Amino acid sequence: MHFFELQTTDGAARAGIVSTDHGDILTPVFMPVGTQGAVKAVEHRELLEAGAQIILGNTYHLYLRPGEEVLSHFGGHHRFINWQKPILTDSGGFQVFSLKELRRITEQGVEFRSHIDGSKHFFTPESVIETQRIIGSDILMPLDECAPFPSEYSYAKKSMEMTVRWAERNKSAFDNSLPRYGHKQRLFAIGQGGIYPDLRMQCIEQLVEMDFSGYAIGGLAVGEDAETMYDIAGRSAEALPADKPRYLMGVGTPENLLTAIGLGIDMFDCVMPTRNARNGTIFTTRGKINIRNRRNRLSDEPIDAGLDNYASQNFSLGYLRHLFIAGELTGLQLASLQNVTFYQQLMRTAREKILSGEYRQWARNFLDDFNRMTKERAGKEQLKK
Amino acid sequence: MHFFELQTTDGAARAGIVSTDHGDILTPVFMPVGTQGAVKAVEHRELLEAGAQIILGNTYHLYLRPGEEVLSHFGGHHRFINWQKPILTDSGGFQVFSLKELRRITEQGVEFRSHIDGSKHFFTPESVIETQRIIGSDILMPLDECAPFPSEYSYAKKSMEMTVRWAERNKSAFDNSLPRYGHKQRLFAIGQGGIYPDLRMQCIEQLVEMDFSGYAIGGLAVGEDAETMYDIAGRSAEALPADKPRYLMGVGTPENLLTAIGLGIDMFDCVMPTRNARNGTIFTTRGKINIRNRRNRLSDEPIDAGLDNYASQNFSLGYLRHLFIAGELTGLQLASLQNVTFYQQLMRTAREKILSGEYRQWARNFLDDFNRMTKERAGKEQLKK
Repeated sequence: MHFFELQTTDGAARAGIVSTDHGDILTPVFMPVGTQGAVKAVEHRELLEAGAQIILGNTYHLYLRPGEEVLSHFGGHHRFINWQKPILTDSGGFQVFSLKELRRITEQGVEFRSHIDGSKHFFTPESVIETQRIIGSDILMPLDECAPFPSEYSYAKKSMEMTVRWAERNKSAFDNSLPRYGHKQRLFAIGQGGIYPDLRMQCIEQLVEMDFSGYAIGGLAVGEDAETMYDIAGRSAEALPADKPRYLMGVGTPENLLTAIGLGIDMFDCVMPTRNARNGTIFTTRGKINIRNRRNRLSDEPIDAGLDNYASQNFSLGYLRHLFIAGELTGLQLASLQNVTFYQQLMRTAREKILSGEYRQWARNFLDDFNRMTKERAGKEQLKK
Repeated sequence: MHFFELQTTDGAARAGIVSTDHGDILTPVFMPVGTQGAVKAVEHRELLEAGAQIILGNTYHLYLRPGEEVLSHFGGHHRFINWQKPILTDSGGFQVFSLKELRRITEQGVEFRSHIDGSKHFFTPESVIETQRIIGSDILMPLDECAPFPSEYSYAKKSMEMTVRWAERNKSAFDNSLPRYGHKQRLFAIGQGGIYPDLRMQCIEQLVEMDFSGYAIGGLAVGEDAETMYDIAGRSAEALPADKPRYLMGVGTPENLLTAIGLGIDMFDCVMPTRNARNGTIFTTRGKINIRNRRNRLSDEPIDAGLDNYASQNFSLGYLRHLFIAGELTGLQLASLQNVTFYQQLMRTAREKILSGEYRQWARNFLDDFNRMTKERAGKEQLKK
């Protein structure tokens, strides 16, 4: 069986299946972020209820905590956290490069200090593969350099070129090592090049030449405007081979997702559903809601009448607001479950609409409705203030 | 049907049934604390999984947040929080008296400042009944004065006497008002008198004379030693009528519960299972565990092999430790679910043993084993440090 099967296209939008030893992933797919082996405030069984097919882990975080000894002792991350479905691990490059003051990049790799205890560590393209062999993720990401936004052309070029050289080393380390736990692992590449289309194309061309299992588009959603992101994502998708999955890293809002799907992207991850939930921003089929707003105080409207999950159907906006105002942990739990379910449902529907050939029209209508309802809610909020 | 049916006694220990319009409560019972309408970090459905039969709410907190307007609008607390089983509300007396600097007690009632915004409020025996009518709890607690520990005899006496006068006013306000939501409510009394047996007996005698639906023993577990608590609780239980439920407020550890059941107590509440969970203290059938301890780092022992719930069976001590060390919210969730389930299971077993006439022997063995296993775990911790 192929790792990726492209089932159908609808314009540039694609429906497919990614096959792993921990099960199939129907694309387009949104991957909830479980940085440290847990999706914040959402139990594993609730992720399954929500329809999550795969979760993310982060190599940087897992390397520091619980660390390779623990992961190895438990027989890998799946067993350690007791999650039976696929796991993708980011290499930690993005996190390390976010440390700024705490890291030093050389051709060899990147030296950094732990954000936890200041201890010194060194990541190389080879070492992150080794760490991800110990983690045992189904999909591994290579070490890349994620250039900051904005970056000058010359810096973006140098950085992209090093990312390509690192990609070769990542690939070589991967090809010369074996999985530890009896299930197959796959290595993706990450395209870089900042906001410069020619650099992006050069990068992709060389990465595709090396033949990875899938291709990520990195270095976006880091501060550039949405149009630029869509432009780079769209050009990248066009340049990538049709028979490999395409992953737009760290994206994004419902609008970002639906637009990028329309450009040919298959996979997404973002902390938005869970982080926004903890900040009191609730995604619902009736628009986005600031749950702390006083207008929800007497609202007996269910959290989301249009979604079928424990949180959305059983509790009112008024009660959820109370939980947030009172600082109750169950507020974070219900809001996170709602948002994760909303994102999964959005992707399931997107896939259905691609399969039925109605994607473009549906996506436009959905976003129009969603934005209108969000504005109406905000408008009512204004009036009631 | 009687509100309370005493099914059997085993020594002084009792098994019974408290009947409410929201369902029966098999006693002895431990009531998880949902101060503000949520048991911290535990979803309602998880409370049901754990076997919780009734939860607590707190009149002081609910009066301040969400407030009477919201509770009334939603048709009472059950509907507001969507909890179908019985609810008991403490009057808030204990919380108000804990405010110390922020309150002033007179014969009329107690003036206090909100811990949230400093606003001024006044609770009377009449007003807390009114508020609990609006809350719609199945079991209401009266406003009492919980004298601090230690209190001089003269203060404890004055305070107890006022509590008795207030009890009459509570009862009168209750008898002269109606439930708002179509289900029956019941008023308990609270015995006070500090650590002075004669005051306790005087108090109970007068409260029993007034004929309440149940009797609580208040003002214990506030700093006195365990022997004193058991002495007062035992004397109180003996003096109380057999045909009414007896509730020891704010207690306690597994040892406290089993000892007090042996003295004839039927009902308990305490923040211990949930608060300790959040501090990383896990109650298991294999002893008490400090989950943060390094000895759990490589432990693939399930959280509690002797308990059948989602947390205990599916996750290892090593993973739970990681979640605590990494500051993950799901750690608090799993630990809270474990502790709440442990407490419910403990009470279910206690009840079975009373019904089969084996209570005393079982309780002694259970506590011996539990304390031995707790010590062994601590001992191992010492060695591994």
